[in-house]
Amino acid sequence: MKLKFKKEDLTKGLQTVQKVAQNKSNNISYENGLLIKALKDVIEIQANDYDMGIKVIVPGIIEEPGEVFISNPFLIELTRRLPSDEIEMKKQDADTKLTVLGGKSKFECLTMNPDDFNEVTLIDSGYSNFSTDSITLKNLIDNTSYACSTDDARPIFMGTLMEVNESTLTMVATDTHRLALKKVILEQSIEQPIKAIIPSRLLAEISRQMPTDMPQVVEITAIRNNIAFKFSNVYIKTRLIEGEFPNYRRVIPSEFSCKVMVERNEFTGSVERTSIIAKDSQYDVINFIFEDNQIKLTSQHPDYGTVEDYVACSMEGEQLNISFNGKFILDILKHCKSNEIILKSKANSPMLVQEKGEDSYIYVVTPMRTR
Amino acid sequence: MKLKFKKEDLTKGLQTVQKVAQNKSNNISYENGLLIKALKDVIEIQANDYDMGIKVIVPGIIEEPGEVFISNPFLIELTRRLPSDEIEMKKQDADTKLTVLGGKSKFECLTMNPDDFNEVTLIDSGYSNFSTDSITLKNLIDNTSYACSTDDARPIFMGTLMEVNESTLTMVATDTHRLALKKVILEQSIEQPIKAIIPSRLLAEISRQMPTDMPQVVEITAIRNNIAFKFSNVYIKTRLIEGEFPNYRRVIPSEFSCKVMVERNEFTGSVERTSIIAKDSQYDVINFIFEDNQIKLTSQHPDYGTVEDYVACSMEGEQLNISFNGKFILDILKHCKSNEIILKSKANSPMLVQEKGEDSYIYVVTPMRTR
Repeated sequence: MKLKFKKEDLTKGLQTVQKVAQNKSNNISYENGLLIKALKDVIEIQANDYDMGIKVIVPGIIEEPGEVFISNPFLIELTRRLPSDEIEMKKQDADTKLTVLGGKSKFECLTMNPDDFNEVTLIDSGYSNFSTDSITLKNLIDNTSYACSTDDARPIFMGTLMEVNESTLTMVATDTHRLALKKVILEQSIEQPIKAIIPSRLLAEISRQMPTDMPQVVEITAIRNNIAFKFSNVYIKTRLIEGEFPNYRRVIPSEFSCKVMVERNEFTGSVERTSIIAKDSQYDVINFIFEDNQIKLTSQHPDYGTVEDYVACSMEGEQLNISFNGKFILDILKHCKSNEIILKSKANSPMLVQEKGEDSYIYVVTPMRTR
Repeated sequence: MKLKFKKEDLTKGLQTVQKVAQNKSNNISYENGLLIKALKDVIEIQANDYDMGIKVIVPGIIEEPGEVFISNPFLIELTRRLPSDEIEMKKQDADTKLTVLGGKSKFECLTMNPDDFNEVTLIDSGYSNFSTDSITLKNLIDNTSYACSTDDARPIFMGTLMEVNESTLTMVATDTHRLALKKVILEQSIEQPIKAIIPSRLLAEISRQMPTDMPQVVEITAIRNNIAFKFSNVYIKTRLIEGEFPNYRRVIPSEFSCKVMVERNEFTGSVERTSIIAKDSQYDVINFIFEDNQIKLTSQHPDYGTVEDYVACSMEGEQLNISFNGKFILDILKHCKSNEIILKSKANSPMLVQEKGEDSYIYVVTPMRTR
């Protein structure tokens, strides 16, 4: 094998597969590392762990075809630091070492048998497929998956539901204490609805990979146990979480005794200040009193004292005294963009949080019982 | 007590004492936290742990004098986030709580008895004192103390020696494998020489405190167990390490068989590349061959392969084949500013590293034995 790359192209390709190639949680040696495959007319870099397979096509010149399986966590750093813009990779069939050359630097890297690499296979025909664009998908992921659980005793809640019905794509995540839902309308309807629970950890990696300088088409194909994302020169396949996602529609409240509109930055500042000591105590409890066009926020810490803060708001309905986990309120505020936030609730009931004029993004948070 | 501050002044004052006030390694409750003292015409904030005492004078208005002892790790964050530029602090003598007010925010902070605070006492008359400026002192600290040891079995090597003889101020640190020494000439001679071993951990805090936008006078006073630094509105007193610092002059080599001049950036890049895999193996060994106006660097890792790199240099003397810990070489290169580095050594002997045209900064590094 003998390949030539521009440094930028090679490091970008290695960066794409890096996280999967170096995943240590699933470290079974022969399934980690990366495969550089240049058998025909393209150079492909692949990585595959139990949860996610990824492959990327990297521009470069194939002087002699070949493939090589490397498990070396330093390959990307070595490549990035090479003192030249051109990088050469070569390996004689009889060698066990791959030589990486750039300028006056030479790196000889131990390799493994490419037959031991578990290649990423393409999904030929899924039961359903659709396409969207990279910015929309990143947005959906980032605005929902943070609400999932990290408790691996209940794996369903560690995932984010991707649901497609006709032309509506909905993503939902919940840890049972709060729920985030966002939907978009696709350009085309699909025939066969999709209901896939994708591990949120993997969605974070997919979000990271999405090109955001320009929206790019992402083709999504579902089969029973996997879902695949194809965009520009990248192909990602992830496993799904098996099981039934809870009926999230039932959780979204529709009756309220109190509706509050508040300026986002002011409210965020106020919740942040009240959270400073609350977050150090066990449950991060902030008490909210909505009354007379004002929100009063209080929190206390047994060792450090109490905080009291006020924000002006505009109100409809009755006075309300209710407590929430401060982190759960800050989480949604961080994911809002609009200047005005709408809070709707009633005594001892979940609160609905929305941005003004934005019906496609819904956040629900359950109150905390306090003495 | 009732005090008024500009937010900027108060947060700056709290930041100054923060690290000492929150030191957990010496956490004996009544000696941690901070004292705000406004008994006469100035407002002083103090913090004191076993190792370091610090006090700072903060501008503000004393409406009612008083003092308060607070142990609250969130005070600084609360203050910084208050939504107003003016901050009021008040406490009735009978109260146990300090009230901090800013805009619509109110924070009530539990306090302790000020008599339990171990106040920072001034050193009235040390056996010797001198002055320098803040930028010079920060420079001396940052360019030497990194070479100290972190092994608390040998406390002497965890400190940096500050030695003043007549008008020469020298700072030296060593972990026995390498040594960094820097000296400056003071404007005035001192009568009584100083030899103080200051814990490097505390020097890092002193360096952080040094004003660097403009050089400011730092007055330094030594007594047997302590040394004090006074600059602008800050007073810092630190304990010293007892014992005899080793004779560092004996360690500095003076006979060489090989002298090499090399461009700093190129050499650094080369050492960094070679270090990538070396630093993952046990001793971070890089082999250097100085020969024919070229440095050849190599390193190997049992699992990942070998790296080979070359840098042009200009040489005097004999060929030399020698190995060093890569981190020790990078450490000195990071602390150099000149474009050209001079390396002088001979077989199996320590190497002297200096910047071209800079005799006041010396670095010595011991070679490693390799097979």
